[in-house]
Amino acid sequence: MTEKTISSDVVYRGKIITLRVDKVELENGSVSKREIVEHPGAAAVLAVNSKKEVYFVRQFRKALEKEILEIPAGKLEAGEDPRECACRELAEEVGMKAEDLRLLAAYYTSPGFANEKIFIYLALDLEPVEAERPPDEILKVCRMPVAKAVEAACSGVIEDGKTLVALLHALRLGLAD
Amino acid sequence: MTEKTISSDVVYRGKIITLRVDKVELENGSVSKREIVEHPGAAAVLAVNSKKEVYFVRQFRKALEKEILEIPAGKLEAGEDPRECACRELAEEVGMKAEDLRLLAAYYTSPGFANEKIFIYLALDLEPVEAERPPDEILKVCRMPVAKAVEAACSGVIEDGKTLVALLHALRLGLAD
Repeated sequence: MTEKTISSDVVYRGKIITLRVDKVELENGSVSKREIVEHPGAAAVLAVNSKKEVYFVRQFRKALEKEILEIPAGKLEAGEDPRECACRELAEEVGMKAEDLRLLAAYYTSPGFANEKIFIYLALDLEPVEAERPPDEILKVCRMPVAKAVEAACSGVIEDGKTLVALLHALRLGLAD
Repeated sequence: MTEKTISSDVVYRGKIITLRVDKVELENGSVSKREIVEHPGAAAVLAVNSKKEVYFVRQFRKALEKEILEIPAGKLEAGEDPRECACRELAEEVGMKAEDLRLLAAYYTSPGFANEKIFIYLALDLEPVEAERPPDEILKVCRMPVAKAVEAACSGVIEDGKTLVALLHALRLGLAD
């Protein structure tokens, strides 16, 4: 299966996303339009300390017009390794570095309209590190026992996709035991 | 925490998404821009038959320029109940209806730039039903044992976020046993 591109128009080129509209020919010969958001991809970190607590950031999300609880995350810089990005975000947002960093999951957040791929890492053996947070990132750091966090994920209290995926993997790996 | 809207400009109003750019004032007084994709939301269905097989659809995603394996899903129509949407997509894409439909998860796919919320249902007690598929939806239906699907999710073979969330919940609920 494929969709042949008849034309492709960039509608908006922004700081984080680019929007383009493709006119495509389907396999059955019909013609359709695809609205596509190009995103550089992202990395996120499930950081668990020696007390079996998960680090969260609470921040206001303009798209939702409310604050939500998420694991630390950020978008990839051009050409950046997702692992480097995960380390940077863990340092900037939570002030930690990890001796042990493992890839937990990598997935497309919303393949129907966006190419964003997110890489989620499990960070263990944490140590404090000095790092500055960018001025337009206002957030509160908090910690929660893994078991309580997993419960919040399963009951629907956690509303963020990457955080949900990370915590369901934590449950699977026995980190909530 | 909040971000005060200074101005809000719609850049593109499409068939599925709307893109707007908000100029905002942060709590620390600094001014920033937020690129926001408005999406009507979506519903998805983890449909498991009496043989403990999951229904998948394989379709070409223009945003990724490749085919991927997903559970049946679709966007909400204006004012539509997510449960109705789930039933519609299950009928249109897989040709099934469910006697037993339960909400598994509801989350924001990418709160950093989009307001899309997806509702994932578990569908059991399946029966065939007649339904027509929209002409611009070309897909192949396939089935896989739940245990094999969960393995594919945990090993990274499943690349779609909603499918990953659905299968991790299936594992938690013992559906893969």
